[in-house]
Amino acid sequence: MSGIATYGQLSQHLMSELVSIVGDGYVLTSPEILESYSHDETEDLHFPPAAVIRPANTEEVAAIMKLASLYKIPVTPMGARTGLSGGALPVFGGIGLSMERFDRILRIDERNHQVTVQPGVITQVLQEAVAEKGLFYPPDPASRGSCFIGGNVAENSGGPKAVKYGVVKDYVLNLEVVLPSGEVIMTGANVLKNATGYNLTQLMVGSEGTLGVVTAIVLRLIPLPAFDKLLFIPFPDATQACAAVSAVFRAGIIPSAMEFMERAAVELVCRYHPELIIPLPDKAAAFLLVEVDGNHEDLLVQDCASISTVVEAFGAGEISFAESDTEKTKLWSIRRLAGESVKRHSVYKEEDTVVPRAELPALLENVKSIGRAYGFESVCYGHAGDGNLHVNILRGDLSAEAWEEKLPVAIRELFTEVVKLGGTISAEHGIGYVQKPYMPIAFSEIQLEIFRRIKKVFDPHNIMNPGKVIDMM
Amino acid sequence: MSGIATYGQLSQHLMSELVSIVGDGYVLTSPEILESYSHDETEDLHFPPAAVIRPANTEEVAAIMKLASLYKIPVTPMGARTGLSGGALPVFGGIGLSMERFDRILRIDERNHQVTVQPGVITQVLQEAVAEKGLFYPPDPASRGSCFIGGNVAENSGGPKAVKYGVVKDYVLNLEVVLPSGEVIMTGANVLKNATGYNLTQLMVGSEGTLGVVTAIVLRLIPLPAFDKLLFIPFPDATQACAAVSAVFRAGIIPSAMEFMERAAVELVCRYHPELIIPLPDKAAAFLLVEVDGNHEDLLVQDCASISTVVEAFGAGEISFAESDTEKTKLWSIRRLAGESVKRHSVYKEEDTVVPRAELPALLENVKSIGRAYGFESVCYGHAGDGNLHVNILRGDLSAEAWEEKLPVAIRELFTEVVKLGGTISAEHGIGYVQKPYMPIAFSEIQLEIFRRIKKVFDPHNIMNPGKVIDMM
Repeated sequence: MSGIATYGQLSQHLMSELVSIVGDGYVLTSPEILESYSHDETEDLHFPPAAVIRPANTEEVAAIMKLASLYKIPVTPMGARTGLSGGALPVFGGIGLSMERFDRILRIDERNHQVTVQPGVITQVLQEAVAEKGLFYPPDPASRGSCFIGGNVAENSGGPKAVKYGVVKDYVLNLEVVLPSGEVIMTGANVLKNATGYNLTQLMVGSEGTLGVVTAIVLRLIPLPAFDKLLFIPFPDATQACAAVSAVFRAGIIPSAMEFMERAAVELVCRYHPELIIPLPDKAAAFLLVEVDGNHEDLLVQDCASISTVVEAFGAGEISFAESDTEKTKLWSIRRLAGESVKRHSVYKEEDTVVPRAELPALLENVKSIGRAYGFESVCYGHAGDGNLHVNILRGDLSAEAWEEKLPVAIRELFTEVVKLGGTISAEHGIGYVQKPYMPIAFSEIQLEIFRRIKKVFDPHNIMNPGKVIDMM
Repeated sequence: MSGIATYGQLSQHLMSELVSIVGDGYVLTSPEILESYSHDETEDLHFPPAAVIRPANTEEVAAIMKLASLYKIPVTPMGARTGLSGGALPVFGGIGLSMERFDRILRIDERNHQVTVQPGVITQVLQEAVAEKGLFYPPDPASRGSCFIGGNVAENSGGPKAVKYGVVKDYVLNLEVVLPSGEVIMTGANVLKNATGYNLTQLMVGSEGTLGVVTAIVLRLIPLPAFDKLLFIPFPDATQACAAVSAVFRAGIIPSAMEFMERAAVELVCRYHPELIIPLPDKAAAFLLVEVDGNHEDLLVQDCASISTVVEAFGAGEISFAESDTEKTKLWSIRRLAGESVKRHSVYKEEDTVVPRAELPALLENVKSIGRAYGFESVCYGHAGDGNLHVNILRGDLSAEAWEEKLPVAIRELFTEVVKLGGTISAEHGIGYVQKPYMPIAFSEIQLEIFRRIKKVFDPHNIMNPGKVIDMM
């Protein structure tokens, strides 16, 4: 692979060139800054950049990329650093290209139900701004209060609403992208239908910053639904909870969220966030958090009744209906804090597995049986309606050596089973740095070679977020 | 560009190799066959292949492509030849690769709401097969009774339902593709969410057979809505009809179809299909055909009432509600036969323009003013809810010379206006052969060069449907 030896260094000359592009205050090299830009939310990884650059606009990004291209400097676009696959870590050093100053919503086009936004806007801020106009941008990762929309585009994020409303890729109409060469393109047009050439928009979405720097995003919006209802459903058997998921869809209901949580996930959240403690039935091994939304409250009540009937056949216990916004917020907070709470509890490794929805029970059984074989405990939760299970493997009492030795073997086994079930190794977290070694489980060498060649189309010198997604040969 | 001179010829030796791959009856060279495979539904174009090959399975396609790659023979994948941009015409001769024998629905997965289908299945046949299981595959072009699903994938087709349910790309989960080299890949996985590497699925959808041969398609399905209502709304002013379109959406209603037709389009259908004659109000200059669907009939009635209120402000006349399935079929037939009827009426050129929805009135005004400037008449209809206007420019009384001379200039002017309005030059028909000269209006040279480089990633010898979408330098 193109190793660090082939890259240029940030010489004094280059640093002053960078200062002349972005201005004095926006080229940062203090040890504290480099340290804070050395990690995201992925495990305990640590890769400091040689310098953090904070450009203000597309022209500055273009000038930086031209320079980086000329001197073969690695450039890693960075957002809010909430990623879970290490996609924004400067593993070869070089420039950490912080997009924090791209923090404006440029235009909410109410006539056409579109928004044009810079990549450094926090997802929840964007959602709230368009909601004020009666419009809805559905995809919101658990980190929506801190993550950037640009990172969501880079990773093709999902979130709870994806099951009804789709993921980021289903909302991106057009992107402004600075290529590694410094050239600027739009990837498409601001239209709902487009049959003109290769779909560069969809090639950029989910490309994890390896093909270019996204500097503006055009998203389609939909009308904001007026009502929602939230159900919290206990199951004595976790596999049965998973089996209930596809039964709900087969009954013709499309919930706006269908989340699965093992009891251990809920308990960990309650341990670290006592304000969220809720009574859990003794016999409950797992829970479904199910939301329905729409413009007719009476129909949602009917949907809730239908869901109750369906889940009963899978042994569901007494269902809690969230009566108030406070109760809804509490239940959603439990779900959204599951990842963070697991992280506080133990050294862990999170896998973002996804299978066709009806294979979810088989996936969960596999997770547990692999855990038994290797001596791991695991805590699972996720977007069950999409067949997307976040598997948290806990180090627990294992020695550091046993953990290091067994973990990759167990993950390899898990991913192999996932692929056998028709699934793949990441649904919404991306491949980034940490899942890269597992790509050959999901892809043939021919496919990987196509990925490499596509990468070279955009980035012949491999300076754009190198070391991510695929190894270049 | 890689011209015909650089390609190999189908020698006697090669022909016998092809026979040994697919069997004696499936290598066709009779003048009648070559003639019938020389055209699709695009104008009066005529490009016969040197031979038509009808493979039976993926292995045969792979063997054909290996041979074609070795001997540099152009290969043009062909479906039902209902395309409107010449995408399936063998403009450099060579092999016409007919996918007609790929005519099986391989699996309807009711548990996961998915279907695996071969590319040569007629779209309507597929729709009806999944509807029997209570499932819905929404995208259906006007030609749904004859077009193939493989062609729909190649062109990223839309159709009337796209406005609520999206286009083909929104349903394709995974594709089996034979690359020009003869290698076979799957582009993704059969999952609803996928964040693993570059999106090869979306790169293939809409690539018009220029990157590989699609041999199997995995589509997601949704529950079939139980009810629909259809409204036929006359407007004294066509621009006002267009303006009413975005107002309906701004009122929070998402129709399952929102079609626009100029009076002349309806009249031409009635002229050539007298069984479809319907009374047209004297003052009506244009019509909207609006459908709403869902599982609650009473709500659809409410939606119809809301739509009536909205369109009244735009001068709508008396609305016809289709009372029976027969009436619905009649109105839909009028819409679906518009293209064919225009074609019977006059030498014409159809453009598949698309703009952000609210710019539709401006687009229509532009069409008419360009027509006045150049002496063309035009008949417009289309998927107004998507901002997608099919503009049929009629030769009418113009001499053949004046037509040939003025038409490209007028189209160039129209597309330039479309792009100024934030739109692009094809929504659902594709670029194919006939729109290729206009690509530089919508794309910069940098973008076109990226297209060329992507093409080369898959097809270094430019044998895969050459002469389409972009000119290779």
